[in-house]
Amino acid sequence: MPEFDLIDRIRARVLQRDDVVLGIGDDAALLQVPAGRQLVVAMDTLNAGVHFPHATAPADIGWKALAVNLSDLAAMAAEPAWCTLSLSLPGDDPAWVDAFLDGFLALAAQHRVTLVGGDTTRGPLSISVTVHGFVEPGRALRRAAACVDDDIWVSGTLGDAAGALARMSVDASDPVARAAANPHDPAHSGWARLRLRLDRPTPRIATGLALAGIANAAIDISDGLLADLGHVCAASGVGAQVHLDALPASSELRAFFPDARRHALQASGGDDYELCFTAPAAARNAVEQVAIATGVPCARVGRIVTGTHVQVLAGDGASWTPPRTGYVHFGSQ
Amino acid sequence: MPEFDLIDRIRARVLQRDDVVLGIGDDAALLQVPAGRQLVVAMDTLNAGVHFPHATAPADIGWKALAVNLSDLAAMAAEPAWCTLSLSLPGDDPAWVDAFLDGFLALAAQHRVTLVGGDTTRGPLSISVTVHGFVEPGRALRRAAACVDDDIWVSGTLGDAAGALARMSVDASDPVARAAANPHDPAHSGWARLRLRLDRPTPRIATGLALAGIANAAIDISDGLLADLGHVCAASGVGAQVHLDALPASSELRAFFPDARRHALQASGGDDYELCFTAPAAARNAVEQVAIATGVPCARVGRIVTGTHVQVLAGDGASWTPPRTGYVHFGSQ
Repeated sequence: MPEFDLIDRIRARVLQRDDVVLGIGDDAALLQVPAGRQLVVAMDTLNAGVHFPHATAPADIGWKALAVNLSDLAAMAAEPAWCTLSLSLPGDDPAWVDAFLDGFLALAAQHRVTLVGGDTTRGPLSISVTVHGFVEPGRALRRAAACVDDDIWVSGTLGDAAGALARMSVDASDPVARAAANPHDPAHSGWARLRLRLDRPTPRIATGLALAGIANAAIDISDGLLADLGHVCAASGVGAQVHLDALPASSELRAFFPDARRHALQASGGDDYELCFTAPAAARNAVEQVAIATGVPCARVGRIVTGTHVQVLAGDGASWTPPRTGYVHFGSQ
Repeated sequence: MPEFDLIDRIRARVLQRDDVVLGIGDDAALLQVPAGRQLVVAMDTLNAGVHFPHATAPADIGWKALAVNLSDLAAMAAEPAWCTLSLSLPGDDPAWVDAFLDGFLALAAQHRVTLVGGDTTRGPLSISVTVHGFVEPGRALRRAAACVDDDIWVSGTLGDAAGALARMSVDASDPVARAAANPHDPAHSGWARLRLRLDRPTPRIATGLALAGIANAAIDISDGLLADLGHVCAASGVGAQVHLDALPASSELRAFFPDARRHALQASGGDDYELCFTAPAAARNAVEQVAIATGVPCARVGRIVTGTHVQVLAGDGASWTPPRTGYVHFGSQ
């Protein structure tokens, strides 16, 4: 499939937006940022075998390539608008491209994001996406804005994606593991739901937007709560205390993993793309209202303190350290 | 080298701009587009062994990764401002990264482009760049705007990059070819100059900016003049006549290749990143003034005609068809 046929194939399926003056097909896109808004730009790449297992369905790869980028906009409280896509493919496979676009464009449509340009090249399977969004000046949520005594919150549940990945890694010939590898198998719908969390993460756009003016700092959880909260602390010059028992878990994760293993997945597992944010104690009601309005629960998991590191406290008040685990980690975005 | 050390390494070397509200280090960059300007966005990826030879110096790879993107802005008559970089690296090699940045940031500094974000990942060597620039509404040069009877112009000289690549491919053990592979060897400075055209293309930013309001359509020549002019014709619904003898050649290309081979390199060789543009005959003086003002010669090479294809006329007026050549082509950006 020559590059220009591929580009036509993509262009034919792209959503229209009034602020796209010139989209796919020229040397560059021409775009109109709304008056009075700042532009928010993030770029993330997924490489086969590094950020997703080689056997991942192309539609899931397409979804995730956009989702991890939209998640960065969510963490800034930005409204998504446009994206560009660079797709490196090892060979000609129109069916693969169509399936990839099914996933990519389905998520794009959910957030009214238009694909405005990019590149298609020959090479090992790799997907780079740049997303563009808008924010009112002063309303963006930054990593560096956490304050001592802020509550620490996380959206949704933690550890699901890492749980799915752990199960897949343990024994691919195990029927339960195979169910985890096949989210459409009704016999193992619990595992399938975890697998969907790995393959089709939900960028928390509405939650992020609603938190502007309420939260102080925010980050999306791609590398695991402790690592990403650590970035917030480093950027803000503060420390954090997190209560292990307060970390939100899905019923599937509770059912499938003993407590110790579950705690490790929740604290250190990547790829959930939930938001971790901090907010003053006075904002607790406002955060609860955001959770209700967006349909995404928010759990209060700790507190920002003076210091420089993230401390985790177990139920008995003792300091807890995550065990070294051996599972493959696909969450370095 | 952990990802965050790498990011710090990059951040420490980045140019400051007043319109960057928040640069490298958060989930996304915050940027301020000037009032009354449209945003211009292009994204191109270079893969090792596909878009550049594996043996290319890292500084040259860095330069070229940004150059091919800036060239797209030049072809739109856009003023460059910001870029994001996604760097996939097979291993830890701080010296490689520093050398890559030497080339990338040297070109960025020439055009006051700031690196505002991106991603570093593990994977086969691949570089994706997204560039952002500005243009006044209505001033962008588009592929679709060529008019019948327009002159066709090209900046600089054609075929140099393809000439260097052809020589490298023919015989890597040949001392002259090795000189082409070593642009710093003074004994073969002619070949070295061609090699620099391949490794360090010059995005024609000043020329593109000066052509706004003068030229009708423009494209940058990455795939070869005939292919890229073909894209202009297809987008504009016109044909083109090009005079083979009018194609501009460097003295090196004339010295090193017999006429027939040189013509093929000029007409079909990629990777020069010159501009091809069309302008009304009434604008000839204005184009000449642009050439003088920017120090980049512009050669009038043909005319837009009714029709749908690009015809090349040899010196005797006969229709000319490029020979099928066997050399490796690194110019599919």
